[in-house]
Amino acid sequence: MAAWSSSPSLRHLLLRPRLPLSPTCFAGSSRRHVHRHSRRRLFSTLTHGDTASTHCDGDGVVDVNPPRGTRDFPPEDMRLRTWLFDQFREVSRLMAFEEVDFPVLESEALFIRKAGEEITQQVSSIFFLYLPFSPPSLLLFSRKSVSLPLKWFTIGQCWRYERMTRGRRREHYQWNMDIFGVPKVRAEAELLQAIVLLFQRLGITSSDVGIRVSSRKVLQAVLNMYSIPEHLFAQVCVIVDKLGKLTREEIEKELMSTGLSSEAVRGIIEVLSLKSLSKLEEVLGSGVEAVADLKKLFSFAEQYDYADWICFDASVVRGLAYYTGIVFEAFDREGNLRAICGGGRYDRLLSTFGSEDIPACGFGFGDAVIVEVCHLLKEKGLLPDIPRQIDDIVFPLDEELEGPASSIASSLRKKGRAVDLVEDKRLKWYKYYFFPPFYISVTEISLLATTRVFKHAERINASRLILVGNSEWERGMVRVKILSTREEFEVKAGELE
Amino acid sequence: MAAWSSSPSLRHLLLRPRLPLSPTCFAGSSRRHVHRHSRRRLFSTLTHGDTASTHCDGDGVVDVNPPRGTRDFPPEDMRLRTWLFDQFREVSRLMAFEEVDFPVLESEALFIRKAGEEITQQVSSIFFLYLPFSPPSLLLFSRKSVSLPLKWFTIGQCWRYERMTRGRRREHYQWNMDIFGVPKVRAEAELLQAIVLLFQRLGITSSDVGIRVSSRKVLQAVLNMYSIPEHLFAQVCVIVDKLGKLTREEIEKELMSTGLSSEAVRGIIEVLSLKSLSKLEEVLGSGVEAVADLKKLFSFAEQYDYADWICFDASVVRGLAYYTGIVFEAFDREGNLRAICGGGRYDRLLSTFGSEDIPACGFGFGDAVIVEVCHLLKEKGLLPDIPRQIDDIVFPLDEELEGPASSIASSLRKKGRAVDLVEDKRLKWYKYYFFPPFYISVTEISLLATTRVFKHAERINASRLILVGNSEWERGMVRVKILSTREEFEVKAGELE
Repeated sequence: MAAWSSSPSLRHLLLRPRLPLSPTCFAGSSRRHVHRHSRRRLFSTLTHGDTASTHCDGDGVVDVNPPRGTRDFPPEDMRLRTWLFDQFREVSRLMAFEEVDFPVLESEALFIRKAGEEITQQVSSIFFLYLPFSPPSLLLFSRKSVSLPLKWFTIGQCWRYERMTRGRRREHYQWNMDIFGVPKVRAEAELLQAIVLLFQRLGITSSDVGIRVSSRKVLQAVLNMYSIPEHLFAQVCVIVDKLGKLTREEIEKELMSTGLSSEAVRGIIEVLSLKSLSKLEEVLGSGVEAVADLKKLFSFAEQYDYADWICFDASVVRGLAYYTGIVFEAFDREGNLRAICGGGRYDRLLSTFGSEDIPACGFGFGDAVIVEVCHLLKEKGLLPDIPRQIDDIVFPLDEELEGPASSIASSLRKKGRAVDLVEDKRLKWYKYYFFPPFYISVTEISLLATTRVFKHAERINASRLILVGNSEWERGMVRVKILSTREEFEVKAGELE
Repeated sequence: MAAWSSSPSLRHLLLRPRLPLSPTCFAGSSRRHVHRHSRRRLFSTLTHGDTASTHCDGDGVVDVNPPRGTRDFPPEDMRLRTWLFDQFREVSRLMAFEEVDFPVLESEALFIRKAGEEITQQVSSIFFLYLPFSPPSLLLFSRKSVSLPLKWFTIGQCWRYERMTRGRRREHYQWNMDIFGVPKVRAEAELLQAIVLLFQRLGITSSDVGIRVSSRKVLQAVLNMYSIPEHLFAQVCVIVDKLGKLTREEIEKELMSTGLSSEAVRGIIEVLSLKSLSKLEEVLGSGVEAVADLKKLFSFAEQYDYADWICFDASVVRGLAYYTGIVFEAFDREGNLRAICGGGRYDRLLSTFGSEDIPACGFGFGDAVIVEVCHLLKEKGLLPDIPRQIDDIVFPLDEELEGPASSIASSLRKKGRAVDLVEDKRLKWYKYYFFPPFYISVTEISLLATTRVFKHAERINASRLILVGNSEWERGMVRVKILSTREEFEVKAGELE
C-alpha cells in the first residue's frame, strides 16, 4: 500500500477518516473482533442519495458504511465475484472474443476545465466523471489501428447516479461483448449464444430465464405505415420502452403528447403488443426488413440450438436511442427482477459523431442482477459455496522453531503449494499452564494441535498440517497430518513435497 | 453495452464525443483500418495536465487520445496485463493471502455535499474523488467483523494527480498485500518473500533487482540521541526520503530549516548513509529496537532463502508519515527507474483516527514500473509474447452453409473449445471470378482457403480449420485441417470433438 503513496494523499486520508474501530472492540480478547454494530462514526459529513439525510451521531462522526449502492468485497464475496468473472471470461474465450480495457479517467479534462488548473494543482484529490454508459469498446476501437471484423469483450466497473432498486446499484461490474464490422444477423446470433452459454454454465435453464427479441425496425415500419416523421423515432422508442412499467393509458398519453394521431398511437401499441412473428408478418408484410431479420435470427437460433431460450416480443425496444436493428433483453421468467442483460445492433452510432458508420452490435451484462437470479435459484445449488483453499499449514510448536518453520514454508511455496505459516498463542498458553516447562513430546502437543490448529486448518480448508516440533526437528524431521484422513506420520523436512 | 444504459447517459456521451474515425479511414477497403494518425478531433475542449494547453485544431475538435497518464488496453496489452495479474494472484495464493475489494466511490458524498443534491439529480454524470492512496484493505477491514490475524490482498486501480515520469502514471493498477494482527517481524519477512517470489516468477534475478530495507526506528533512535522533539519526526522523515533525489547540501538546508542544530543534521545524515547493519549497531548500540528488528529480519531472510535479494540501507525511510517500523523498497540495480514497490509496518495508523491500534504491515506494487523492468530485461525473454489462442476456426465455403457452420461452432463451444466462426468475402470474390458458378469441389476451394483463411488461422494461432463445403455437407461431413501438421481429413460433423 505504499509505493503509490505520497504525503498529500495521506493528508487527504486524514481529512476523510473512514476508520471506525471502536476502542472497545479490541479490548481483552486475543481473538480480536471488529463488530459491525459497534462501529464508531468519526467526524461529521453528509451521506447522499435518496434520503439525503445527515448520518451523524452526537459526536459528529462519519457513517463508515460503503456509500449507498456500492459494495465491499470481503474474501467470501470476492471468491464469488472471481468465480462469476471466470464464467464471463470462459464464455468469451469459447466465443473467440478478445478482452480489452480502457481508462476510466476519460473525463478528467472536463472537470479541470470547470475547476481551473490552479485548483487541481493544489488539491491532491481530483474529481472525474461517471463513465459514459456506451459501448466502451467503441472508445478504444476509435483509438486503435484495427482490422475488421472485431470481437471484443470487457469486464469493468460502471457507475451511475440514480435511484436504486433491487439489482440496480450505483457501482457495478459489467461484462460487455461487442462485434464490429459484421452487418448480418449472424453477429446477433453469436451474441445470443454467448448469453445462453453463460446461463448454462451457471446452471440456469430456459425455464428459469428467457430472452425477448425484437427489432427497432419493427417500430420504424409502424411509423412508416402512419407516415410519422423520422425525428420522432427516438422519442417514441424511449416512451415505448416503458411498456410494462407504465399503464397502457399512460403510454398512450405520453405518445399523444409528441403530436401523434390517436390512430397512430393505437397502431403503435397494437403492433408492439404482438408476441408472434407470423402475426407481425401479417401486419407489416413479409417484404419488411424487420421481419426478414427476425426470421433469420430465429432460424439461426435453431441451428445454434438455443431456440427454447428466445421469444419474439415486439414491445422490446430498449431504452437507448442509438439502437438500429435487433434488440434483446434477458429476463427471469418469474418476473421478479429487472432485465438481466440487454443489447442490440447500433450501426449508426459512429455517424452520430460525424464519422462513417461501422456495423456494430453488443450487449451489457451486469453482475448484480445475475447474482440475484442465482440467489433466487439457490435451492438449485447454483451459487457455489467457494471455500478458501490452502494446501499446507506450517505450525512451529515453539517460538524458537519459527526459523525452520519459515524455511519449510518458503520451500513448499517454491514448489507451488499454498502455505500458511501460523502461530497459535493459546497453544503456548496451554503449554505453559497445563504442562510444566519440561520436555514436551510432539505427540502430547499435537493432541492440543488437534483441538486448536486442526480446527483452524479444517475451517480454512487446508489439506495438510505440518507440525515443526523440537524432538523431531533435532532429527531433521517434521510431523505431517493429512486432514481428510487424519493420518499422521513423520517426514524428513527436506523431502516434503 | 446496453443493460446499463439510459438515455441521459447517451446524451452525456453525445456531449463528450470521443469518436475520432476519419471518414476516409473506411473508404473502399473491405479490410478496414482505423489509422492512429488520421484521427479527427471533434468539438473543442481542454486537455489537462503538465502542458495545460488547448489541444484543438481549427475545427475545434477534441483530442481523443486517452487522458495523459492513462492507458488503453487493446487485446495484446490486455493479455500482458492478465498475465501479470495472474502472477500477482498466484503469488498471493502461494502465500495464503485472500483477495478482497472495496468501492472506489468512497467519496461521492463529499462531492454531493459541495455540489448540492439538486445538481446531482439533474446531471447524469457525477464526480467523485481520487482514491486515498492508503492501505485499501484498512478501509474494508474497518467495516468487517473479522478475527485476527488477517492476510489480505487487492489488485485494483489507483488514481492520482501529479507530474508524470517514467513508470509513474495518473492511473495504474496496484497489487497490495497487507497483514493485520502480527506484531512481529515475521510478518515483514512474509511480505518480502511474496515480493521475491513474484520477481522469481517473472524471471527476474537478484542481480537485476534488490530490496533496500531499513526501519523507521533507526531515525527515531538518532532523533533520541540528539534529543530532537517527537513532533519533528514525521517532518524529518519526509525530508530524509529525498536523499538521492536532492543533493546532500539541499537536504541539510531543509533539515536546518526545521530548527535542528547543525550537529543533529550531520548526525542524521551520517547514520542514514550507513549501508551496514554492524556499523549501525556500533553507532546506535545493540540494545536499540531498530537493530534487533533488522537483525531478526535478516536472519529470517536466510531461513526464507532470499538473503541475496535484500540489503540494509539506512537511507530508506519511505515518503509516508504513517510508517512505524521496518520499511523497504525494491529497486532495479541499474538505477534507471523509480522504486518498483515499497511498504513497511504501520502499527499506529488506526490510532491516528482515535481507535485502538492493530499491528499492520503491507506493500504496494504497481504494474507500471515492473513492466518497465521487464521491458528493460526483454532481451532475457522475460516479457512473454502471449498470442491469441483459438482452438477452431469454422469456415462455411458458401453463404448457404452458414446455418450448418453455426451449428458446428455451437456444439464445439459446448464441448469447451474456443471457436471463431469466420466468413471471408475475398474468398467468395475469388470463387466467382476464377471459377464460373458451377460445381466447385471443396478440394479446389480449400486450396484458396489455404492461402487466405489458413493465413488468418495461423495469425490468430488457431489449431484447427474446419471447412464446411457443399459436397461434404451433403454427406454430413466436414473437412478438418490441423494447422501445425497441415494434415487434412474428412470427419462426420457430429463426430467432431
